[in-house]
Amino acid sequence: MNKISKALLAAAIFIIPLLALAAGEKPGSFSAYVDGNGSISPPKDFRGTWAHLGTWVVTSKAPMPGAESAQTTPGAGIHDVYAQPESVRAYQKNGRWPDGTVIVKEVRAISWDDLPTGHVMYGGDRSECFVMVKDAKGRFKDNPNWGDGWGWALFRAADPNKNVSTSYKTDCMGCHETAKDTDRVFVNGYPTLRR
Amino acid sequence: MNKISKALLAAAIFIIPLLALAAGEKPGSFSAYVDGNGSISPPKDFRGTWAHLGTWVVTSKAPMPGAESAQTTPGAGIHDVYAQPESVRAYQKNGRWPDGTVIVKEVRAISWDDLPTGHVMYGGDRSECFVMVKDAKGRFKDNPNWGDGWGWALFRAADPNKNVSTSYKTDCMGCHETAKDTDRVFVNGYPTLRR
Repeated sequence: MNKISKALLAAAIFIIPLLALAAGEKPGSFSAYVDGNGSISPPKDFRGTWAHLGTWVVTSKAPMPGAESAQTTPGAGIHDVYAQPESVRAYQKNGRWPDGTVIVKEVRAISWDDLPTGHVMYGGDRSECFVMVKDAKGRFKDNPNWGDGWGWALFRAADPNKNVSTSYKTDCMGCHETAKDTDRVFVNGYPTLRR
Repeated sequence: MNKISKALLAAAIFIIPLLALAAGEKPGSFSAYVDGNGSISPPKDFRGTWAHLGTWVVTSKAPMPGAESAQTTPGAGIHDVYAQPESVRAYQKNGRWPDGTVIVKEVRAISWDDLPTGHVMYGGDRSECFVMVKDAKGRFKDNPNWGDGWGWALFRAADPNKNVSTSYKTDCMGCHETAKDTDRVFVNGYPTLRR
């Protein structure tokens, strides 16, 4: 490498990040869970530290109460939903999710038990995690997992760091399109948001 | 009031709290939710700020999925359970609830909906709140709502500040005696505690 090349390389190393900063945001700096290409990483410590929005129980095709094998029924599960506490406070105030909000829906198998209070369902092993990252600025226009105001990801327990969604339109909108009037979030299931 | 009475009164005002402090604990100082007589007040802001332990769905006698009126079935409900984040961290480390831990089980009516993902249940209106306060020192021996290591309370939505439990042995142990091997808490239903 000659002296001119070295000088250009050194200049580039300093100048490119400065240009990015000048443009308003460093690539990858908008969320701890999103890199510069829009790849989404799964949050790890949301249980016990984030705010619980509410829990869905999907009972489709599930055995009736008292049956033994709800765990193996496709589609059935306990769906616990969490978001960062500061995002929940903001939503409670003005009904909008702040830029960078992360919502996690953790899906667990349904476990059953017979307790004095009756037949009960509760969360068994985790099967998958859905993640949405609020994007108020339309970043990552070329990434098919971003659009309609959010980044979208699905992580399965077998390979928990790999986003298996390849296109939010085909992999996520089948359900979330229904919630288009509430920014694609099923807020009516979340008692924590009702004030 | 003569001078001697005034002097005695003034002395009492200063001396009694000092004696209480010397004994190791001011009455009522052990928990923000417990007064000097062991009366328990309901925590208000646990949703969105406390740690979510897990959610039970009690399905006893509930209509089958797709039925219209689960809301009115006695005993059925979505039971969301919360505790203070610092108590959860301590339990995750050593498997014991610290003195002063408060556990809240908020019971809501079951709402149903048909969404693309299937028949779903979620939390409707709040019906009642169960509260347990960990007491590692055997305080309030004369109060029938304290014993077996906890203070016990039940607040109904119709009168949300009144503990309707008159004796934990008759009002709470019918269910919680079953969990005596895990300090009267049904920890196996709480994924947040599994590490």
